[in-house]
Amino acid sequence: MVKKISKRRPIPHFLRHKKHSKKPGQAPGTLHFTGEKRIENVQLNLCDYDIDQLGEYDITEIEESKPYLDSPSKTWINVLGLHDVEKLKHIWNYFELHPLIQEDIINTNQRAKIEEYPNNMFFVLRMMVVNEATGQLDVEQVSIVLSKNSILSFQESDYPIFEPVLHRLRNGAPRLRNHGPDYLAYALIDTIVDYYFKVLEHFGDEIEALEDKILEGFDESIPEQVHTLRRKLIYFRKSVWPLRDSLNSLIRDESHLIQDDNKIYYRDVYDHLVQINDGIENYRDMVIGMLDMHMSQVSNRMNEVMKVLTIIATIFIPLTFIAGVYGMNFEYMPELSIPWAYPAIWTLMILTTAGMVFFFRKKDWL
Amino acid sequence: MVKKISKRRPIPHFLRHKKHSKKPGQAPGTLHFTGEKRIENVQLNLCDYDIDQLGEYDITEIEESKPYLDSPSKTWINVLGLHDVEKLKHIWNYFELHPLIQEDIINTNQRAKIEEYPNNMFFVLRMMVVNEATGQLDVEQVSIVLSKNSILSFQESDYPIFEPVLHRLRNGAPRLRNHGPDYLAYALIDTIVDYYFKVLEHFGDEIEALEDKILEGFDESIPEQVHTLRRKLIYFRKSVWPLRDSLNSLIRDESHLIQDDNKIYYRDVYDHLVQINDGIENYRDMVIGMLDMHMSQVSNRMNEVMKVLTIIATIFIPLTFIAGVYGMNFEYMPELSIPWAYPAIWTLMILTTAGMVFFFRKKDWL
Amino acid sequence: MVKKISKRRPIPHFLRHKKHSKKPGQAPGTLHFTGEKRIENVQLNLCDYDIDQLGEYDITEIEESKPYLDSPSKTWINVLGLHDVEKLKHIWNYFELHPLIQEDIINTNQRAKIEEYPNNMFFVLRMMVVNEATGQLDVEQVSIVLSKNSILSFQESDYPIFEPVLHRLRNGAPRLRNHGPDYLAYALIDTIVDYYFKVLEHFGDEIEALEDKILEGFDESIPEQVHTLRRKLIYFRKSVWPLRDSLNSLIRDESHLIQDDNKIYYRDVYDHLVQINDGIENYRDMVIGMLDMHMSQVSNRMNEVMKVLTIIATIFIPLTFIAGVYGMNFEYMPELSIPWAYPAIWTLMILTTAGMVFFFRKKDWL
Amino acid sequence: MVKKISKRRPIPHFLRHKKHSKKPGQAPGTLHFTGEKRIENVQLNLCDYDIDQLGEYDITEIEESKPYLDSPSKTWINVLGLHDVEKLKHIWNYFELHPLIQEDIINTNQRAKIEEYPNNMFFVLRMMVVNEATGQLDVEQVSIVLSKNSILSFQESDYPIFEPVLHRLRNGAPRLRNHGPDYLAYALIDTIVDYYFKVLEHFGDEIEALEDKILEGFDESIPEQVHTLRRKLIYFRKSVWPLRDSLNSLIRDESHLIQDDNKIYYRDVYDHLVQINDGIENYRDMVIGMLDMHMSQVSNRMNEVMKVLTIIATIFIPLTFIAGVYGMNFEYMPELSIPWAYPAIWTLMILTTAGMVFFFRKKDWL
Amino acid sequence: MVKKISKRRPIPHFLRHKKHSKKPGQAPGTLHFTGEKRIENVQLNLCDYDIDQLGEYDITEIEESKPYLDSPSKTWINVLGLHDVEKLKHIWNYFELHPLIQEDIINTNQRAKIEEYPNNMFFVLRMMVVNEATGQLDVEQVSIVLSKNSILSFQESDYPIFEPVLHRLRNGAPRLRNHGPDYLAYALIDTIVDYYFKVLEHFGDEIEALEDKILEGFDESIPEQVHTLRRKLIYFRKSVWPLRDSLNSLIRDESHLIQDDNKIYYRDVYDHLVQINDGIENYRDMVIGMLDMHMSQVSNRMNEVMKVLTIIATIFIPLTFIAGVYGMNFEYMPELSIPWAYPAIWTLMILTTAGMVFFFRKKDWL
Repeated sequence: MVKKISKRRPIPHFLRHKKHSKKPGQAPGTLHFTGEKRIENVQLNLCDYDIDQLGEYDITEIEESKPYLDSPSKTWINVLGLHDVEKLKHIWNYFELHPLIQEDIINTNQRAKIEEYPNNMFFVLRMMVVNEATGQLDVEQVSIVLSKNSILSFQESDYPIFEPVLHRLRNGAPRLRNHGPDYLAYALIDTIVDYYFKVLEHFGDEIEALEDKILEGFDESIPEQVHTLRRKLIYFRKSVWPLRDSLNSLIRDESHLIQDDNKIYYRDVYDHLVQINDGIENYRDMVIGMLDMHMSQVSNRMNEVMKVLTIIATIFIPLTFIAGVYGMNFEYMPELSIPWAYPAIWTLMILTTAGMVFFFRKKDWL
Repeated sequence: MVKKISKRRPIPHFLRHKKHSKKPGQAPGTLHFTGEKRIENVQLNLCDYDIDQLGEYDITEIEESKPYLDSPSKTWINVLGLHDVEKLKHIWNYFELHPLIQEDIINTNQRAKIEEYPNNMFFVLRMMVVNEATGQLDVEQVSIVLSKNSILSFQESDYPIFEPVLHRLRNGAPRLRNHGPDYLAYALIDTIVDYYFKVLEHFGDEIEALEDKILEGFDESIPEQVHTLRRKLIYFRKSVWPLRDSLNSLIRDESHLIQDDNKIYYRDVYDHLVQINDGIENYRDMVIGMLDMHMSQVSNRMNEVMKVLTIIATIFIPLTFIAGVYGMNFEYMPELSIPWAYPAIWTLMILTTAGMVFFFRKKDWL
Repeated sequence: MVKKISKRRPIPHFLRHKKHSKKPGQAPGTLHFTGEKRIENVQLNLCDYDIDQLGEYDITEIEESKPYLDSPSKTWINVLGLHDVEKLKHIWNYFELHPLIQEDIINTNQRAKIEEYPNNMFFVLRMMVVNEATGQLDVEQVSIVLSKNSILSFQESDYPIFEPVLHRLRNGAPRLRNHGPDYLAYALIDTIVDYYFKVLEHFGDEIEALEDKILEGFDESIPEQVHTLRRKLIYFRKSVWPLRDSLNSLIRDESHLIQDDNKIYYRDVYDHLVQINDGIENYRDMVIGMLDMHMSQVSNRMNEVMKVLTIIATIFIPLTFIAGVYGMNFEYMPELSIPWAYPAIWTLMILTTAGMVFFFRKKDWL
Repeated sequence: MVKKISKRRPIPHFLRHKKHSKKPGQAPGTLHFTGEKRIENVQLNLCDYDIDQLGEYDITEIEESKPYLDSPSKTWINVLGLHDVEKLKHIWNYFELHPLIQEDIINTNQRAKIEEYPNNMFFVLRMMVVNEATGQLDVEQVSIVLSKNSILSFQESDYPIFEPVLHRLRNGAPRLRNHGPDYLAYALIDTIVDYYFKVLEHFGDEIEALEDKILEGFDESIPEQVHTLRRKLIYFRKSVWPLRDSLNSLIRDESHLIQDDNKIYYRDVYDHLVQINDGIENYRDMVIGMLDMHMSQVSNRMNEVMKVLTIIATIFIPLTFIAGVYGMNFEYMPELSIPWAYPAIWTLMILTTAGMVFFFRKKDWL
Repeated sequence: MVKKISKRRPIPHFLRHKKHSKKPGQAPGTLHFTGEKRIENVQLNLCDYDIDQLGEYDITEIEESKPYLDSPSKTWINVLGLHDVEKLKHIWNYFELHPLIQEDIINTNQRAKIEEYPNNMFFVLRMMVVNEATGQLDVEQVSIVLSKNSILSFQESDYPIFEPVLHRLRNGAPRLRNHGPDYLAYALIDTIVDYYFKVLEHFGDEIEALEDKILEGFDESIPEQVHTLRRKLIYFRKSVWPLRDSLNSLIRDESHLIQDDNKIYYRDVYDHLVQINDGIENYRDMVIGMLDMHMSQVSNRMNEVMKVLTIIATIFIPLTFIAGVYGMNFEYMPELSIPWAYPAIWTLMILTTAGMVFFFRKKDWL
């Protein structure tokens, strides 16, 4: 008779809170992968380039990278898959990464951050992509370790995030090929931030669809949908905000690994993040306003229901009373024997009803 | 019987979220116009002036501007229309603009900002004008590139935003003619900010109209209207806030393109923006208060409906019961044969009603 | 039958938003008075004083002030009335005021501020006075231009704001007479801030009156009154806050027009403003709490109405049903002919009612 | 029939807003006591101490303090009662206090603050004590003037606030006796702040009591009680916050009257204030949550009332209809003469009721 | 008939506010234990280690630690139990701890903080552990006093918080053994912060459980549960926030007790705290959203109840009226004698009902 609450939509996977792997009191740098295995084997894609040449190689052992690293050309090694801790450890030790870097790469609940170490600049970001098949967000952690002459990047899966950058490298983009690895690092981060714009658009679409739903009719699952949307926006903001702050510090501070004339590009990424953040705040405001609108819609409906009940009851209860009076069985009820009494009663009833209708019209209820 | 929810008002065009054109991973400075074509052909209006003379020219090729740029007089080139990327590229390259400036001019979702480049000062602002025909806001992005001796400005359409400045130039305004292009830049920005005051007034009118509507009667579309108004204010604030912050930095920092004695004028624009921002915050507070007021109005109405129902039901239900009792067909009901029973019952009913009315009066319901 | 929404109280004049006079693109310093004419002719009251003497003069032309300005004694010229722009312009030019100062004096929507110019310190404040006749706030803009040896002050009307200061001057207050015009500027500002305390008290009274009203009974105009009160507080805060911030900067920064040992007095005014601001925040919190309290009162009333309805309906609907059963006309209803059936039915009805009453008592509804 | 709103609890005296005594435009330092007379005569308690001796004296004229002030021992004069302005003026002038200090001591609406003057450090605090007799808060303003070798303290009443400090002095506390008057000032402030903890506990008790009341049953005065509690917390915070900020500045800045190795103690008081402030914020959050909880309780009750009404009405209205049908007086109603019709109707009614009960059980209403 | 409010869950012990032990005006450093006795006797575990050896000793008198403290190896003394003030005083005096440190160790309501004293660095933290038996949080205060060559730590109970660190020491962790006591202090703090992650997960589980409960059905204890959860989160945040701020200062400032190359580890703890704080904020947002969702669920239920009532009443009240009309006893009612009148009335009734059902379907109520 009354609609059921619509079936609960599954909360997106990435919103479910994750277990923090490290046991209390473990040494820093204790390595334990906190994500899920998303790829069969750890893959290493090496890309060696300078202004004149570009070489792409799939290597299996990190030692194979030695000749490229030793050469003056710039080297970018992209590592796909984080589940094989032993193999990763081998890679990290080969590059002498600080234990805290190692711990952060593998702990996939990391807050986005940029940290400077004596020989490295370390970036952790969260990639977010709208999966076109499912319409859901795919989320994974990406780490970038910038060294003097090389870049190490780590992804959880083999999603081709950095394909556009590779594409540009192959097409001989002079700025990319000519600048040092700090410019490549910028290009990688910029790619991820560009995906954020797509995610923002995705949220914008969701919000407009939900807004239309609220205005069109009544759906009991709206509060839940608003709640989920709000959680997704909070999650998104949590990914964007710390990165923005870290970039801001990066731009202001001296850094021996990032050249001053490349900072203008980092500032541009920073601007994009500010813009995304504005968008998120905007959407959050709208989502809160949507709940208000929904609640007010619910109130309006309740009001409407009450008015129908009141109109019906108010018209018929007095009439029923009149009918009840002349249904009484007293022996001495003089009206009962008057011939015109029955039509008179009908007239009285009709006039009462007309009066009620007039009253409701004045009250603006009809 | 019950009013329908009023037809949905179209959400203003500029509130619909726009697509971010850049594909993830594209090189910075990849040029792709994100707005709509609003003018047939790109127009170039050149204005060359100093204290003694003023020349206005419509040129078709940017190269025609060479003699004016080379002369010591100040040159202002206003470019109308952003859809012809090829033509714009030609202009930008002629002026050797940084690729990031180029990208920002053409990406019309830009956050307002002021950025310093080695040879230029770059301003992006959002012009907002109340269209007198439609009563809606017309929004477009305006970019200003300030160089040592010239100004380049870019608009999306041929709306005569800068007409008042031109008018003053033609009338020989000595301060404007005498100062360098930094003062002209100020004049252009000040013009746009003056339009913001008109927009603020427009919102003030809308708010007062809506407030009157809420107090006068009941309209189910009010939550939606409040929601839209709130979104417009958020949008407006988003246009004003970043400009204010950028101007604040501009005033505090050294800048080789803006003379110190002209900074007092920029400070004045900054003050105006602070004032506008105060106004927006004020209006936002009022809009939130309006929703509270509306909800309380809805509660009051519901209360009123409930009271009518309760009064009618409470008076007639007991009376109907009494009538029902003497409608029973028991053989032995001594009251039925008492001659004065019928008038006695009427008296009882009238007394009951009077008691109820007295009770409601005491409760302050009548 | 049901109370009407009480007649709308007029929103105070000063809350109605004002038109911004300047047309977009006009030169800064374009002079256009934005208020209303509040006085017939512009009046100039000149007061020349030092520790030994005090002279008060009503002058008609600003040139008459020359001998006083040239003398080493301090000169204070109070200008009443801002509508005669030509006359004012003449005065300003006589004192060589910066065009932006001129624009700000005459634009009566100004945000309170303190600005330093090469030869002047410029103060804009909003005077707020509780009009004892109307119980409303009178608001007007006051500007003070502090120079090396003189003070120019501008009011919109001839309200005797500065009478108390004059009074002290006449009574030979040694500190006031002895110190420079910076101390006089302090005294003028302090006078205006003292009026703010009166305004704060006025709001405190209004809040307590409204609070009593909410607790005593039910009045449908309460949300509107709360809304208006809130707007007034916002407006008041908007007048106080920027002044406080400007004073804070004034105290911290070097200033050649304000002597260091007088800064302690400006700090005292600053403290007063902080205190007023605390009071406003306090009242804002209380006003928000009042609306919650009112809404909860409304809920309580609705609850009460519902309970009355429910009690009446729940008691009589079953009884009416019983009466209805024995009003049926079936030929074979054995109960009808039992002599004790009628009293038995009455007993049943009374017991049912008693059961209901017991149930309601248990539920705490009676 | 329906409960009355419980009698209004008097709002605590100290929450009623006080009149600001100073008339607009009065000279700073114009002395006018703003509190109430709480003690018959102004009392002066003098305490002269160093590591070896302690003398306590009740003096009547401030001149009697001369020998103690001239001696190298430290002197503390506690002045009780602020209503006799003439007498106080005499004391202040004897100590050559700045006019602004004088004004602040006597104006008992002062915001807590610490100000440095050339020869003095001036502290204004608000003492708050839970009166064990009334369960209410007693509030009074305490001022402390720290000089090179002496302390002046001012209270409104003769409440023995500083008794514990005196007690320690008498017992020969070596740290207190040995350190300068800056340590004594610390001890006095610390005593007042310790009372704040008691006040905080008092609020904690009130909150828990109110929380229990909300959960246990329904009381219409709850919104009002929550509102009053909230106001008290706001008032308390207003007393604590500015003191905390002033102490923070005191710790950071150089001060010639407070020795550096005593600053650690002031830092400790600061820590206590931060802790108290945390507690207040915590309680404010809880109080807001309480109102939500109460509103939700009210909604639940309303829901319950509605359900009872609906169940009764839904069961009996159809039954009454059936009874009504067979109470009609048509001549040709074949059912009326069927012998088993009456029991059949009863069966139908019972089945209808059972169906309704089943429906309500399914809906989880019974 | 209507569900009872579910039995109140006990509010967790640690949320009940604690009494502040110190009586107003007591000397700083007056020692009074504010917690409960959680262990029979105070225990002292001494651990002496360097890169080569590790010795663990249970000592009974603090003097027994002398040989270890005098040796160049690092010494860690963990004190369990805070109730025996005399014994503790003896220990503190042996180490010459500042009286304010002593007071803070024993006052177990301490805000987390890090303070530098001439010879010590003093850390106070709150340990929070999810008790696996009860599912509740166990809370206790931990203090760490870092000296040049030793560490003193104080716990309230004998909970083996630091067991993991001991375990690593025993297993010869080279970094831990090799670095100074500042690294050990880091390891202890890091252990406690790691427990915070577990607590955060625990809250995440509680939130998701409660969210499921809200969506699945209706439970009147939800507002209370939400309220308790909110309080727990506030409490947790209050434990985390000040520690984060203190660590931030520690990282930025110079400190003679913490070596610069160990600061990177403290920065890592700081990062963890920021992450935990983000999580808490996130959860707080979600908890607020949950209450909105619950309220909207309650509204929906009320709406549903109202609709059932309205449908039943609206269908049967008019029908009952019709039946009532023909139950009247007028002598001249021509319809009564028409043979087809009775079936006609039934037809009318059925049509009326059908019309109502159609109307409700159109309104989307059925």
